[in-house]
Amino acid sequence: MLKQWIPAAKPDKEELDKRLDAAQEELLRLQMQIKEHKLPVLVLIEGWGAAGKGSTIGGIIKNIDPRFFKVASMSAPTEEEKRKPFLYRYFVKIPEAGKFEFLDSGWMDEVTKGRLRGELSDKQYAERIESIKRFERQLTDNGYLVLKLFFQIGKKEQKKRLEELEGNKDTAWRVGENDWWQNKHYDKCEEVFDKYLTDTNASVAPWYIIDSGDKKWAELQVLETLCSGIHVAMQNESLAVPILQNVFPLVKMPKLSEVELDKEISEEEYKKELRHLQKKLNALHYRLYRKKIPVVIAYEGWDAAGKGGNIKRIAGALDPRGYEVHPIASPEPHEKARHYLWRFWTRLPKTGHIAIFDRTWYGRVMVERLEGFCSTNDWQRAYNEINEFEKELSQWGAVIIKFWVQIDKDTQLERFTERQNTPEKQWKITDEDWRNRDKWDQYEDAVNEMLQKTSTEYAPWHILESVDKKYARIKALKIVIEELEKALG
Amino acid sequence: MLKQWIPAAKPDKEELDKRLDAAQEELLRLQMQIKEHKLPVLVLIEGWGAAGKGSTIGGIIKNIDPRFFKVASMSAPTEEEKRKPFLYRYFVKIPEAGKFEFLDSGWMDEVTKGRLRGELSDKQYAERIESIKRFERQLTDNGYLVLKLFFQIGKKEQKKRLEELEGNKDTAWRVGENDWWQNKHYDKCEEVFDKYLTDTNASVAPWYIIDSGDKKWAELQVLETLCSGIHVAMQNESLAVPILQNVFPLVKMPKLSEVELDKEISEEEYKKELRHLQKKLNALHYRLYRKKIPVVIAYEGWDAAGKGGNIKRIAGALDPRGYEVHPIASPEPHEKARHYLWRFWTRLPKTGHIAIFDRTWYGRVMVERLEGFCSTNDWQRAYNEINEFEKELSQWGAVIIKFWVQIDKDTQLERFTERQNTPEKQWKITDEDWRNRDKWDQYEDAVNEMLQKTSTEYAPWHILESVDKKYARIKALKIVIEELEKALG
Repeated sequence: MLKQWIPAAKPDKEELDKRLDAAQEELLRLQMQIKEHKLPVLVLIEGWGAAGKGSTIGGIIKNIDPRFFKVASMSAPTEEEKRKPFLYRYFVKIPEAGKFEFLDSGWMDEVTKGRLRGELSDKQYAERIESIKRFERQLTDNGYLVLKLFFQIGKKEQKKRLEELEGNKDTAWRVGENDWWQNKHYDKCEEVFDKYLTDTNASVAPWYIIDSGDKKWAELQVLETLCSGIHVAMQNESLAVPILQNVFPLVKMPKLSEVELDKEISEEEYKKELRHLQKKLNALHYRLYRKKIPVVIAYEGWDAAGKGGNIKRIAGALDPRGYEVHPIASPEPHEKARHYLWRFWTRLPKTGHIAIFDRTWYGRVMVERLEGFCSTNDWQRAYNEINEFEKELSQWGAVIIKFWVQIDKDTQLERFTERQNTPEKQWKITDEDWRNRDKWDQYEDAVNEMLQKTSTEYAPWHILESVDKKYARIKALKIVIEELEKALG
Repeated sequence: MLKQWIPAAKPDKEELDKRLDAAQEELLRLQMQIKEHKLPVLVLIEGWGAAGKGSTIGGIIKNIDPRFFKVASMSAPTEEEKRKPFLYRYFVKIPEAGKFEFLDSGWMDEVTKGRLRGELSDKQYAERIESIKRFERQLTDNGYLVLKLFFQIGKKEQKKRLEELEGNKDTAWRVGENDWWQNKHYDKCEEVFDKYLTDTNASVAPWYIIDSGDKKWAELQVLETLCSGIHVAMQNESLAVPILQNVFPLVKMPKLSEVELDKEISEEEYKKELRHLQKKLNALHYRLYRKKIPVVIAYEGWDAAGKGGNIKRIAGALDPRGYEVHPIASPEPHEKARHYLWRFWTRLPKTGHIAIFDRTWYGRVMVERLEGFCSTNDWQRAYNEINEFEKELSQWGAVIIKFWVQIDKDTQLERFTERQNTPEKQWKITDEDWRNRDKWDQYEDAVNEMLQKTSTEYAPWHILESVDKKYARIKALKIVIEELEKALG
């Protein structure tokens, strides 16, 4: 893309000033419309060192009220960030609905640097590109405007600027080793940049190459690209998004009605097994801590199915310094204002740690679907989005264990009634539980669809028969142990 | 404390088991009461290496529902954390109302390590102790239960345990250099620990030394300490807290009614000054970035006083990669569930960065006071709490600049009316603004009290006369420049 790129003709000074004024005013107007339309705008600023990325952002944001934008300056990943999936530090920064986020720079810089330094193999690079394409598509599918700008300057111009910056004691610190390295290996860099731009140039999030030879002209190009991007996004906001076909290997799951619920275990055997398995799990936890393997355990199931008690038996075997339980309630306003997976990305474990989710991202295709908290198009798309999310975790090296805790309708009634009649347990039962119960059949259909569509080979569902809660706990422990042993080799 | 400490007699096995059962059940019951009483419980686990801190926490949390607790394992501060105030990484971890947070370890470990390694001078150590005492008192004053446990074992016992751990390949990695160092310098460590325990043993947050020779016995002591602490805290929840006298040097402030509002600047001079001052500020920004000085700029003022436009002129001069504007609205649920300063601690800048707050922690003594969002005792205490908070920032090295943007009642009415009549500005005016206006006199009293009580030498208030907004902008720029120049020396 970069090599064949022909810059647009730069307007003369008078026209440039006129268009700049007009574009600035336009952005000022659009900022209010973005707020009304709840459009989140993510602007990635990529490009050559010394191309003027920082000062151009500075010029742009003068036209936006500080309440409506943030600028994130992404330097090299910290040690903490290196212990999270590659996209983590970007995903957590996505803007709220109605706001701008400028990333200087985005994920291109990290990937192309890795490529140029020989840290990413062909295979790893290809994986990164896939991840990035999915990520950008997920954002735009979920209503984000993703604007990707590449600031282009020639080799000579870059050299001139670096020398100028170095010549002034107030700006010398801004020139890093990497900038000179780039200039020295300009052609090689150009090749890697060009390939990256081509590889990630998607119609939902296309690249815009900004001719950065002149500061004002660069600012105008960015402003006009921003404005036109926003107009298009606002026109398209009510468009439905194609439901992609599943491309991940699936594991066949039974229907809930086929699950045999009469499995049980004696009190004596339960105690013996529990002690034995918890000891084993404890030892495994240390091993995966040392091997820095991250683990995600997801619990879903009927109300009163026994999720809490089940989680307790897993957690009870673990070193408290190495795991966290995340109870998931309805989202808070700042969570609701972002991509629905955001609040799970922010809760991902570090490598070597375990995150246990008590309810999960599958709320999208259950409660959000049935209560109309998202559109039909939204939840229908979510199966694939979730498979992609889990694929990301799996590629990062995570063990993913998903439990559906299953009981029948009569057992739920018994447990609800018992909770209602036991003072210490009353907090566990709410009107909402009874309302959900009324929709049992609809939920059962939704759960069946979810199990069929999201049980991938890398993140399969496990059903825990929990009419006998003790049986379900032992089964869960055995599955966790088995999966961890597999991962530890 | 440690040296004179006499361990309680360990009960015999039968009694121990009985009391353990009873204490576990008690904690299970108390967990629900904590939820009802909205009591946040912060448990600090300190003590010798290999004293069994981790496994004891493991035993304790088995008796708590995972929805109600978190365990944070605090290792050495990350690079990112080192660029924040000392207490930052602890403050951001405080629990929500109704929940437990276990810190393994708390801030004692960091301070005593710094002392033992000779990284903290006498003066710095004394400052840390002051900070810690204030922090703990602020937590308990604001309804937190802070339980501080020190796990004690003798030199021989520690040595034995370290050898045992090292002997087993699954546990060998848990023994760090620091553990052996401690054992070798046991007496020196004991002295430093003893002094720290004595220095920070306050009646609002006393120390409990746990005899950790035997695992079960240690667990029992912790459980019983927890239960008794919770009982006391629940009994005391409605107690008012003493209003401490101000100990910080204050700067005399005028009353708002004395502020002369007829100051103005011509359009021509404004443009000239603006360009000149913004350029100067821009250069200063780079210098403080290099010197790693953090800056906090706080804006308060009447509705429609011109805060937004004023902030824009400051921000417009800065490199967007080095500052952030934080618009402060009413707190979200997870923010309301914590100490009212929590949401400001989480937004502190890194060293070398600037954080601009559009409305601030002073909401406590204005809107929260006047709307009854907190008790009288709460807001009366807040002046001192805020002075302490800013003292913390100042000791960290931050420049703190606080602006009160002042207009008169007639000017506000003019601007409200103009907003109402201008379509692009209507979003800026709400019913709440009109309601606040009705309480102008009450607000004026509250602001006067705030200015008198919180204008400290290290964080004074500056009044911006903003009937002529341009005058106020130039004045703000000049003050920021002056303060930064002072800090840069």
